[in-house]
Amino acid sequence: MNDIQHRVGIKSSADNIYQLLTTDSGLTQWWTNDVSGAGEINALIKFRFNGGGPDFTVVELLPNKRVGWQHSGSVPEAWIGTSIVFELVDDGEQIFVNFTHANWTEATDFMAHCNTKWAVFLLSLKDAAETGKGAPFPNDTQIDHS
Amino acid sequence: MNDIQHRVGIKSSADNIYQLLTTDSGLTQWWTNDVSGAGEINALIKFRFNGGGPDFTVVELLPNKRVGWQHSGSVPEAWIGTSIVFELVDDGEQIFVNFTHANWTEATDFMAHCNTKWAVFLLSLKDAAETGKGAPFPNDTQIDHS
Repeated sequence: MNDIQHRVGIKSSADNIYQLLTTDSGLTQWWTNDVSGAGEINALIKFRFNGGGPDFTVVELLPNKRVGWQHSGSVPEAWIGTSIVFELVDDGEQIFVNFTHANWTEATDFMAHCNTKWAVFLLSLKDAAETGKGAPFPNDTQIDHS
Repeated sequence: MNDIQHRVGIKSSADNIYQLLTTDSGLTQWWTNDVSGAGEINALIKFRFNGGGPDFTVVELLPNKRVGWQHSGSVPEAWIGTSIVFELVDDGEQIFVNFTHANWTEATDFMAHCNTKWAVFLLSLKDAAETGKGAPFPNDTQIDHS
């Protein structure tokens, strides 16, 4: 069992962050500019990066508290069987977003790459929530030259 | 066993990156502006953030290839028993830095915080190597409002 876990603290309303995690118009503000299908439980969200990209099925929605996705489809191969949870915790000063990308089968270079990249996108989520301006693909911060 | 693993790709010489990882003047360019003690095997490096911070003993040095540190001292408590390795791999186009902060006893919120923060500092290392301008503490990117 190998999990990726990140934690960022955001000065914004939980409702605003929840919208950024559960709607096409929200998700396009911080992860990739090409998102379709976001919705209620069982919705299949398609995230696209230059045409390809992962699908996730929405498996958990607790308004302003928790969002869960199960990877669906076959790309990237290393993500098959993985799941993602965003947990929102209000400490009075800020909303902490506890992020988990769980159940990787192997700790590979690709997992390390994705770990670094998730930090980039969660800081993009933070910026989108706080300033209205995230940096979704293709305007995302580059972590290498590949 | 819980490890943090990141991976960034840097357009720079391995020698330049190695200097940034093994000298006080290099380390102050990307992690914190207050570093002392860097040197050969068994050197005790003191990293300070507003006066406090971790110490690491240098345990492995393979020039332009690999740097290993063992946590020393008592702060932060969750880092006791952990170790850090920077592995440099030249793929011809760039130098990949494979980073591991190994042997956490528990996957806590603090580990998730440190994971996100390591991404920030490794991107600071990348910027320091490529442009000469990293963002070490206290000019580091903030991931929360604590």
